[in-house]
Amino acid sequence: MKKLKELTLDETFEIFVLLKNADVRVAKNGKKFIAFTFQDKSGTIDGKFWGASEDEISKFTAGKVVLLGGKREAYQNAPQIKILNMRLATELEPNDPSLYMEAAPMTREAMEEEIQQVIFDIQNATWNRIVRHLYTKYHEAFYEFPAAKRNHHAFSGGLAFHTLSMLRLAKGITHFYPEVNQSLLYAGTLLHDLGKVIELSGSVSTEYTLAGNLLGHIVIIDEEITKTCEELKLDQMSEDVIVLKHMVLSHHGLLEYGSPVRPQIMEAEILHQLDNLDASIQMMLGALRSIEPGERTERIFGLDNRNFYLPKC
Amino acid sequence: MKKLKELTLDETFEIFVLLKNADVRVAKNGKKFIAFTFQDKSGTIDGKFWGASEDEISKFTAGKVVLLGGKREAYQNAPQIKILNMRLATELEPNDPSLYMEAAPMTREAMEEEIQQVIFDIQNATWNRIVRHLYTKYHEAFYEFPAAKRNHHAFSGGLAFHTLSMLRLAKGITHFYPEVNQSLLYAGTLLHDLGKVIELSGSVSTEYTLAGNLLGHIVIIDEEITKTCEELKLDQMSEDVIVLKHMVLSHHGLLEYGSPVRPQIMEAEILHQLDNLDASIQMMLGALRSIEPGERTERIFGLDNRNFYLPKC
Amino acid sequence: MKKLKELTLDETFEIFVLLKNADVRVAKNGKKFIAFTFQDKSGTIDGKFWGASEDEISKFTAGKVVLLGGKREAYQNAPQIKILNMRLATELEPNDPSLYMEAAPMTREAMEEEIQQVIFDIQNATWNRIVRHLYTKYHEAFYEFPAAKRNHHAFSGGLAFHTLSMLRLAKGITHFYPEVNQSLLYAGTLLHDLGKVIELSGSVSTEYTLAGNLLGHIVIIDEEITKTCEELKLDQMSEDVIVLKHMVLSHHGLLEYGSPVRPQIMEAEILHQLDNLDASIQMMLGALRSIEPGERTERIFGLDNRNFYLPKC
Amino acid sequence: MKKLKELTLDETFEIFVLLKNADVRVAKNGKKFIAFTFQDKSGTIDGKFWGASEDEISKFTAGKVVLLGGKREAYQNAPQIKILNMRLATELEPNDPSLYMEAAPMTREAMEEEIQQVIFDIQNATWNRIVRHLYTKYHEAFYEFPAAKRNHHAFSGGLAFHTLSMLRLAKGITHFYPEVNQSLLYAGTLLHDLGKVIELSGSVSTEYTLAGNLLGHIVIIDEEITKTCEELKLDQMSEDVIVLKHMVLSHHGLLEYGSPVRPQIMEAEILHQLDNLDASIQMMLGALRSIEPGERTERIFGLDNRNFYLPKC
Amino acid sequence: MKKLKELTLDETFEIFVLLKNADVRVAKNGKKFIAFTFQDKSGTIDGKFWGASEDEISKFTAGKVVLLGGKREAYQNAPQIKILNMRLATELEPNDPSLYMEAAPMTREAMEEEIQQVIFDIQNATWNRIVRHLYTKYHEAFYEFPAAKRNHHAFSGGLAFHTLSMLRLAKGITHFYPEVNQSLLYAGTLLHDLGKVIELSGSVSTEYTLAGNLLGHIVIIDEEITKTCEELKLDQMSEDVIVLKHMVLSHHGLLEYGSPVRPQIMEAEILHQLDNLDASIQMMLGALRSIEPGERTERIFGLDNRNFYLPKC
Amino acid sequence: MKKLKELTLDETFEIFVLLKNADVRVAKNGKKFIAFTFQDKSGTIDGKFWGASEDEISKFTAGKVVLLGGKREAYQNAPQIKILNMRLATELEPNDPSLYMEAAPMTREAMEEEIQQVIFDIQNATWNRIVRHLYTKYHEAFYEFPAAKRNHHAFSGGLAFHTLSMLRLAKGITHFYPEVNQSLLYAGTLLHDLGKVIELSGSVSTEYTLAGNLLGHIVIIDEEITKTCEELKLDQMSEDVIVLKHMVLSHHGLLEYGSPVRPQIMEAEILHQLDNLDASIQMMLGALRSIEPGERTERIFGLDNRNFYLPKC
Repeated sequence: MKKLKELTLDETFEIFVLLKNADVRVAKNGKKFIAFTFQDKSGTIDGKFWGASEDEISKFTAGKVVLLGGKREAYQNAPQIKILNMRLATELEPNDPSLYMEAAPMTREAMEEEIQQVIFDIQNATWNRIVRHLYTKYHEAFYEFPAAKRNHHAFSGGLAFHTLSMLRLAKGITHFYPEVNQSLLYAGTLLHDLGKVIELSGSVSTEYTLAGNLLGHIVIIDEEITKTCEELKLDQMSEDVIVLKHMVLSHHGLLEYGSPVRPQIMEAEILHQLDNLDASIQMMLGALRSIEPGERTERIFGLDNRNFYLPKC
Repeated sequence: MKKLKELTLDETFEIFVLLKNADVRVAKNGKKFIAFTFQDKSGTIDGKFWGASEDEISKFTAGKVVLLGGKREAYQNAPQIKILNMRLATELEPNDPSLYMEAAPMTREAMEEEIQQVIFDIQNATWNRIVRHLYTKYHEAFYEFPAAKRNHHAFSGGLAFHTLSMLRLAKGITHFYPEVNQSLLYAGTLLHDLGKVIELSGSVSTEYTLAGNLLGHIVIIDEEITKTCEELKLDQMSEDVIVLKHMVLSHHGLLEYGSPVRPQIMEAEILHQLDNLDASIQMMLGALRSIEPGERTERIFGLDNRNFYLPKC
Repeated sequence: MKKLKELTLDETFEIFVLLKNADVRVAKNGKKFIAFTFQDKSGTIDGKFWGASEDEISKFTAGKVVLLGGKREAYQNAPQIKILNMRLATELEPNDPSLYMEAAPMTREAMEEEIQQVIFDIQNATWNRIVRHLYTKYHEAFYEFPAAKRNHHAFSGGLAFHTLSMLRLAKGITHFYPEVNQSLLYAGTLLHDLGKVIELSGSVSTEYTLAGNLLGHIVIIDEEITKTCEELKLDQMSEDVIVLKHMVLSHHGLLEYGSPVRPQIMEAEILHQLDNLDASIQMMLGALRSIEPGERTERIFGLDNRNFYLPKC
Repeated sequence: MKKLKELTLDETFEIFVLLKNADVRVAKNGKKFIAFTFQDKSGTIDGKFWGASEDEISKFTAGKVVLLGGKREAYQNAPQIKILNMRLATELEPNDPSLYMEAAPMTREAMEEEIQQVIFDIQNATWNRIVRHLYTKYHEAFYEFPAAKRNHHAFSGGLAFHTLSMLRLAKGITHFYPEVNQSLLYAGTLLHDLGKVIELSGSVSTEYTLAGNLLGHIVIIDEEITKTCEELKLDQMSEDVIVLKHMVLSHHGLLEYGSPVRPQIMEAEILHQLDNLDASIQMMLGALRSIEPGERTERIFGLDNRNFYLPKC
Repeated sequence: MKKLKELTLDETFEIFVLLKNADVRVAKNGKKFIAFTFQDKSGTIDGKFWGASEDEISKFTAGKVVLLGGKREAYQNAPQIKILNMRLATELEPNDPSLYMEAAPMTREAMEEEIQQVIFDIQNATWNRIVRHLYTKYHEAFYEFPAAKRNHHAFSGGLAFHTLSMLRLAKGITHFYPEVNQSLLYAGTLLHDLGKVIELSGSVSTEYTLAGNLLGHIVIIDEEITKTCEELKLDQMSEDVIVLKHMVLSHHGLLEYGSPVRPQIMEAEILHQLDNLDASIQMMLGALRSIEPGERTERIFGLDNRNFYLPKC
Repeated sequence: MKKLKELTLDETFEIFVLLKNADVRVAKNGKKFIAFTFQDKSGTIDGKFWGASEDEISKFTAGKVVLLGGKREAYQNAPQIKILNMRLATELEPNDPSLYMEAAPMTREAMEEEIQQVIFDIQNATWNRIVRHLYTKYHEAFYEFPAAKRNHHAFSGGLAFHTLSMLRLAKGITHFYPEVNQSLLYAGTLLHDLGKVIELSGSVSTEYTLAGNLLGHIVIIDEEITKTCEELKLDQMSEDVIVLKHMVLSHHGLLEYGSPVRPQIMEAEILHQLDNLDASIQMMLGALRSIEPGERTERIFGLDNRNFYLPKC
């Protein structure tokens, strides 16, 4: 069975795909249609379902797997699907959404193992206990959530993979600059984006939650550390706790980017820069993978809207 | 007994004053001296204590009341005290520091009464309980602390007076624009700066604490609300709690000013503007009070370093 | 008779409406059409008049009241009118445009009375005479004009209502901070936006005039004060006049917002902040009134393009 | 008789100089001294008059010419005068301040003649009449005032010389780009800085006036045009008048630089750029004249605090 | 034969035009079409060629001259060509693209002569030799290329005309301010934009080259001077060479505009301002030429997106 | 023999030190003095040599080693040397300046070996040849120069150590993200700051050269690549060369920081971020090494003037 991105212009096909988005709109003639985004592991293509009935609207919602019959057309230079027929996948068919979503390039098990080893290496008892407590509490979500609604690591498992990539860079840093506090850098890295499991709604049809919008993941994880301290009876006025909170609060680097304080500790500044570095590389790699040498990527919002050239050499 | 600001050039005097600052430094000749800032309710004047002994250094520290004999001189156009003699005030003398500090223009009792009435008017039970809990917990500090280390309301009781002034403006707003949620605006105003009782060290020789520097009062009060909810068993994912936290988190208005989120609720935007308005007026009034009509104030750091003209009309 | 905003999808109707805009354009097929914006007190909806004749183009112009027969459709999720028939309202029918325009929430008489009382309270004779002179000269326009072409108070009587709302806030300020010069704050508030009666073309189909574009309302009112002084033989180098001019010149607060000087007098800074506060509240209220609790408003241009959430609590 | 800048280190001298500044201050020992800036056509040097009596303070004020006996010393690498003796110049001695002030590099008569010719070339009757009226009204001040308190053209006659230099550039522009309206560019150039005769206090000890601070020269000249129109009974709503006012209002180019509107007419944009160009060249020339090839000038405030290198080639 | 801009609405015609752009796109129905921009000396108009065959696509490419039969229509208020028939111009017909392109308002010969005279006036031997070398090397391209892909002087010969216009202004400057080094200002002006002959692809269908994108014309001309020095065996550490390179490197004035260094020499600052001045005037003139007095131009990207009013006086 | 930083207050001593700076100035009394900065491997302290004779001025110049007898005092809280006696070190004494300068924490040999290995790993022949050519040409200077006049790596060998630290990070990056072009990242890193050997004057009394000021190290290295290509007869329009030049040109990341182009290739963006990361860590480490846990560093200019806290945990 072909993948979405393998279809050629004017090819007709029948394949299983995930409904990534399903927005109901009203056409010029007053009738409703559904604007779909179809997805499989090769990527996404849009398609419109004209004259949808109320029944079809309630059936074909985001997150469902369907057997899609269609023709691969093009509209204003972008590929597009003309829908010929469509039905929900049955239980006997491959109807698990995760089969169709982009995923981290490592298995969850491999990520878990590598991350557990890092947690083991945190030698400060306070930081170790706080990290363990929160990694137990949000274990499932942490390994499922994306790292962002869009931009970098916007795929299932993206949050864990982003965290792991940063931990690897952090290990190198503490090797070359031994005066850097490894335990602090590890603990800060592990917690810095964990608030996203509350800021975002999940890995399918990801949206911001009310708390995500009104508080933001930086404040959310600070509150989680606060609650953990209450529960574990840790002194919140101790330097250990204040310094760890400072790591997560300052990790966006600049006030303009939503950190309420700028980094005032060396490890906090490094955490911020590693976050930037891994996110930048992921965004560039993502965009470069879909072009050929000698071409330019589309503009990348998270990198000041620049586009990048892929050299032929 | 004269006040500091009433002394004329070359006048000798003996009066009780508070040591607001007492910084030990080393002179060009290698000997130590103490750079004092003397204070009474009329204001502050600096003076240097040359060749201080270790005994004098440990005795004359910030926060002490002394009987100061000196001469009012001038240095580079600024008034200055030449110290002739100096001793600590005894227990039989007026040695309470608060007798010499600038204070709010209302008695503490009057402020307490007016603020209690406002708390009574918060009709949402969740907000009412959170405010009451924190106002009980930090009651003493709230009525003693300044609203800032310098800039606006930098005097004993300044935090309460600033809060009260904003509540008065808030009452007017909800009167003229009845769609504004009065309970929410009151609750947000009452809590917005309460984190300063942890951010700052107190009303004498005010400094930032470690938590003040690394977390900031905005995050600190958010954590306090979090702890209150744990204690009172309030659901932190309820809209009531999220919205109240948003009020305090966004009250600096812009990310650049340290709010991790910008106001996304009408009452939060209003809270931010009232905070600005009262702080601006206090800073201008403070500067204008020490000049004559037809003159200009010194530059005010908190108002983009502008100076202001006092019209003769 | 139903109002525009009460119509449901696909409903056919015949109602009187005002032509708020009537732009003549050329369609893909080379024929002319008119892009209308219909208005009544419930709001506005767009509709296109295809294949308009020269006669129809000259008849159906902005500012006319028509009897509109049509069907309420939708286009790209926005409501739209399909025009079935249309004729000008006769003299016997309700053909006064003001019947269909949004208006201030107070009667003109009530506004006039309240504003007259404030003028009466200006105790400085120079300011009192200048304000009276200009309020007499532009009396009619002041009570009819909007406060802006779009954004805040963009309705008939909006200029007067915005001024009045600010005067109420100003009264509160001078009550709580008695050192503020009430007469000066009143006079500045009354004049600050009066130049808009020359900057804008009127309350129907509001546009910027040539003077509005090339000079701006801030300079225009300064010129009006200059002419008033010439006429009343007031000394323009007197501090009274200079200070009043400074109030209006600096009321946008920042050079970037078009004030040629920043506020250098306390009352000028307060005037600027009250202007901001009332305009912000009006913009938020306007946007919040058309959504339900739990929803977000559309983005508000005048508030840095933020949108606002309406809490359910 | 030597000039100030010709004195060598440790040389004693007796020469006539102008007191450019004479600030009374209080020394560390509580006694008053006068901080003088002495000036002659070669430049300025500072010197302190220690232990000044009240009589001396009232006698040696800014703007007076004195016979100064002193020694040329140095303090922190800057030249300095040690005052040995000093008395006011008598009526029989060269006591006209203008003999000691930097002046424009042309005679006033030459400037007048060249400028009169340009006025003659303004063909639009309205602009011609307004310019003539204001050039008659402020004739004396225009040829005496500096163009600024400091920065560029800060010398007697500087305002006229700056205006004339720009007129020469304007003539070249209209020659090479004949579509540019010469009369408009001339009229705008002639008026653009004329408000400085009210903004500044004069050519000696130049300060900002109250109107200068609170209104600024841009608004002041706009008001002068307004008054001229009243007097000459010119229609202020005519395009001629509005366009001329726009020229002067927008000549700072950006709102941030104090123009209430940005240039919206080609000639206004050109006027702004020519103003910049002439001011920049004057500032650079002024700084370069006091250094040798291979050296760098001091930092120039008006050019973003850059310093400039004088090439040896 | 009529010109494109002379056609009236609904007029049918047959004229020779140049294909300025020819973009192949895919329509909603999946078929290919060509989006043409037709050009002659009067200007440009767009037109779509529906259902283009592969043969037609390979034949009608940008840079070809065609005989176009069509009808002048309009689409969303903009003129548009409905294509009725179209064939390539034969060798016997006027098929030279330059016949249809906008050109500088002077002949190439006149420009060459005037520029040669200026080169002759460069008295410093090093600068003279470098300029001559590069003007010989890139002679053809210099007189053919535009000065930019779009914005100012975007026509054949535009680079030479822009350079010449600046040289004329430079001559005036050195006349009025004789301390300015004329040879340096001339040499810098002649070279400042010469790198565009490598940055851009040519005068037809102008695009950025790879070197243009990745290095930019400022660095490219600096490299060309470097190569010239190697070839002519000029000492690159000599002040002559460093200063000339500085002229071209700093000519964008601000780092934000792509200059790696800001002007640090008076002539470099002047070069930057003259570049700005000539470019601004050209952009304004270009926009003003297509409107009537009393109208406003379209927004000009290169002038902060402002639009300009053409006065009736 | 004690080191400078080991001296205690009021201790007298006699040690060999390097004269890092020796600025001749004129005192208030008109006599000359020399403001020295003394240096040894422990750091630097200032001291003034009052009443210096012409002979002493010509003898005690920056870069000389002296035997200094003095007393360690303090002035305004900063340590200071009172000079008691001083003479030049003889040839028999340790008079090699490098004995007193801060140095890289690795031997030159170790750095050379590690860097040679990296050059060996550059697989693209063009990049390999260019790097080898320039590393041969500037071999000596590269291993002696600092990486900056002040800020980060401002010590002898600093340029090589900074480059090496970045190469180590680059190796880690290409290990974790194998799609990154290792040869390109290595070549770009090796060349990115090499222009500093021409921009700066050397490792003692480091100043900017004329070329350093007027061209800057980014353009200088680009010119060096250009010359290398001329010499090795490499095609400068080849993608290999253009891409390598782009790496060095864009390595400051933003135009505001002096790069004439922003990174448009993934490896260029990574190079920029690694440069930042290593420089930041070095600056923080340098400042943190001279404070105790619980203290704050002085403000670091290169990190937005922030200071950093050294945690006790």
